[in-house]
Amino acid sequence: MLSKFKSHINTKLSFLKGKKLLLACSGGLDSVVLAQLCKAIGLDLTLAHCNFKLRGTESDGDEAFVRNLASSLELEVLVKEFDTLDYAQNHRGSVQMAARELRYQWFNQLLADKSFDCLLTAHHLDDDLETFLINLSRGTGLEGLLGIPEQNDKVIRPLLVFTREEITAYAEEQKIQWREDSSNSESKYLRNKIRHGIVPKLKELHPTFVQNFIQTQSYLHQTSDLVNNHLEEVKTRLFQKADGTIKVNVADLQKLQPLQAYLYGLFHGFGFSDWEAVHGLLTSMSGKEVLSKTHRLLKDRDQLILSKIKTRVNEHFPVFDKDTMLEQPIKLTMEKVDSVTKPLTNTVFLDKEKLNFPMVLRNWGKGDYFYPFGMKGKKKLSKFFKDEKIDVVSKEKQWLLCSDDEIVWVVGKRADERFRVDDSTRQIVKITWIS
Amino acid sequence: MLSKFKSHINTKLSFLKGKKLLLACSGGLDSVVLAQLCKAIGLDLTLAHCNFKLRGTESDGDEAFVRNLASSLELEVLVKEFDTLDYAQNHRGSVQMAARELRYQWFNQLLADKSFDCLLTAHHLDDDLETFLINLSRGTGLEGLLGIPEQNDKVIRPLLVFTREEITAYAEEQKIQWREDSSNSESKYLRNKIRHGIVPKLKELHPTFVQNFIQTQSYLHQTSDLVNNHLEEVKTRLFQKADGTIKVNVADLQKLQPLQAYLYGLFHGFGFSDWEAVHGLLTSMSGKEVLSKTHRLLKDRDQLILSKIKTRVNEHFPVFDKDTMLEQPIKLTMEKVDSVTKPLTNTVFLDKEKLNFPMVLRNWGKGDYFYPFGMKGKKKLSKFFKDEKIDVVSKEKQWLLCSDDEIVWVVGKRADERFRVDDSTRQIVKITWIS
Repeated sequence: MLSKFKSHINTKLSFLKGKKLLLACSGGLDSVVLAQLCKAIGLDLTLAHCNFKLRGTESDGDEAFVRNLASSLELEVLVKEFDTLDYAQNHRGSVQMAARELRYQWFNQLLADKSFDCLLTAHHLDDDLETFLINLSRGTGLEGLLGIPEQNDKVIRPLLVFTREEITAYAEEQKIQWREDSSNSESKYLRNKIRHGIVPKLKELHPTFVQNFIQTQSYLHQTSDLVNNHLEEVKTRLFQKADGTIKVNVADLQKLQPLQAYLYGLFHGFGFSDWEAVHGLLTSMSGKEVLSKTHRLLKDRDQLILSKIKTRVNEHFPVFDKDTMLEQPIKLTMEKVDSVTKPLTNTVFLDKEKLNFPMVLRNWGKGDYFYPFGMKGKKKLSKFFKDEKIDVVSKEKQWLLCSDDEIVWVVGKRADERFRVDDSTRQIVKITWIS
Repeated sequence: MLSKFKSHINTKLSFLKGKKLLLACSGGLDSVVLAQLCKAIGLDLTLAHCNFKLRGTESDGDEAFVRNLASSLELEVLVKEFDTLDYAQNHRGSVQMAARELRYQWFNQLLADKSFDCLLTAHHLDDDLETFLINLSRGTGLEGLLGIPEQNDKVIRPLLVFTREEITAYAEEQKIQWREDSSNSESKYLRNKIRHGIVPKLKELHPTFVQNFIQTQSYLHQTSDLVNNHLEEVKTRLFQKADGTIKVNVADLQKLQPLQAYLYGLFHGFGFSDWEAVHGLLTSMSGKEVLSKTHRLLKDRDQLILSKIKTRVNEHFPVFDKDTMLEQPIKLTMEKVDSVTKPLTNTVFLDKEKLNFPMVLRNWGKGDYFYPFGMKGKKKLSKFFKDEKIDVVSKEKQWLLCSDDEIVWVVGKRADERFRVDDSTRQIVKITWIS
């Protein structure tokens, strides 16, 4: 048994030699065995222990145990205490979710601050099978059946191919000591049901059930790779990237069958989860949108426009306050000129005496209107946008250069008649937008 | 409960009204309930009962029960007795597999002979879940987790959305009687373990476990559709169809990742199962091949060539025995002509007096040689094929027209010098291959 573990760890983890590793150690069987193994093959290891303060003196006992372990293995140990109950209450989640979030926040911070290369965790095959069954019981897609990955970015799980039984046998053989977790949290309760009630019976169904399960997950991973290859091809075909947004033709989307699966495949990476709403967009009126935490999916005529949500700042930026240059949120310069040359879309010539400084740069709002250059009378900005076929996302990004509250320039699109250079102009300024 | 069943059956099966239906009826709970339901909504039904003669008087009791049921429902019933044990011994399979094969052979024959439109079977959701778990225990890919399809060609399973519990409750409510199957076959044993030992505990994991399982399978089906769409696209790109074969460039195949999954996806539909051998072909020497029951996959230089296996007939066909026309295995005609015109690849001009009739048409064999037209001396046919870059599959299909055992024409490719028309020729024949 010893040799099987060591040779596996040696093979799998040889690439970690010389790297700076953080090992998440609760003091339980799995993480203690992992720490011992990694130490035995000479990896550069630091233990990290979370004290969630959920089980009173028992939690403190775990902490003391891990400190002792570190000292006996001559390893550094980092310990952090959390007020888990308080966090859970403030974040309206379960205690478990709170513990999970706190743990990974801290680990990620350690990875960054102390420049660890990787985090090792002690998940094993039974954790994997339990996760599979829990996901199955809740209803899941392929992803939920893929199990826990052996490596996931910087997190590595060297024990994933071993069963709990094998790890226990190894620990007993090696006379390794560990702490039993007496907690009976909801997850533990569910996992105990699976562990003691279901898994042993599943294993009875086939003499090599565990190996077959590993094989199944390997097949499913390959299938998942095929699906991802396909979705990448579809994205290449359908996603038109422009201007920081992605435009997708609705008719092209509707040709995909099964549509539901494609919508999920194409957009769930952007955080969407209300698939009924996303599906509804295809046939909704222009202007309808669905939001995820990070992205907006907007129906605009025959397209969906996917864009990152920017915190919309309804801010007014003073322009040319003391100098003739604006750096943020866009770059504008102002210079005095003697005459008007043919203006480009990024320049405008104005009669300086008609302007009040500092000018103001702001986004557009409902009710905005201006006097388009070269036209008689005023026009609603919304009508102008419509006539110019400017999509909703571009509209939102549109900047207006104003004098007091009057629009001087729909930046990059159209100047205002009221501020134009005419025969009575005594001083001309040229404003340039450096985009 | 009654209304839930009836409305479901009505909705799902309304498209079967007016069709001629065969219902597989063992006499057990599920098939009796299905028969009752179908009768109740007025479908045109015939019962089919297999008596496998595996449980002596009990089997005969089942048969009598189904005959009575048919009579009380005023339905026609077809019964067939099988010597299942004998079949199993002769086909070296398990008794279950034998029963399964016999059953479906008979049903298919009935569908064809008596022109039934569909076969209804009484599989339900617990069968589906049991199949999922059995496949999981054995190790499986995505396909094995998709479960039993609700419709599969002509086989329809109207009860697939109902659990065993629901069907039992309905039967009890309706005072429907059925026969319990006392058999304890291997499959039953496995299924009973799952049914009584595992499924109830799985259902405890989540209050809507069964609905979630249906949802999971629906997601997995959609994923499977995505995979199939992808594989069709890859086939379109990589499979070059020509001459009844499919050629695939090996370098193109090797670009696919994960390769194993692509090989499986692209070729398992042709009956292959030894994936190590198929994978080995990519780097093997020309001429290596892997066979499935129906297809050959052959390495030929930088290609794989996929072709149907034809029973190779090492037959010699007499040609121009009494007439001047051959119909099988290829079409050849012979006519007397006065002079030689420029020959096309499908014609050859020969000196009739040099030929012995009937000529012979055969495939090539090792050691064959001929005297290529226009060249001095003889050449091995294998060398000729190599020089002409003729692939192995085309070689196998190549016909040789011979006089006695001498090759007169490598049909469609090259005539033999020995039989050419020359100054001494008194009678010219033109032979044409109508391909």
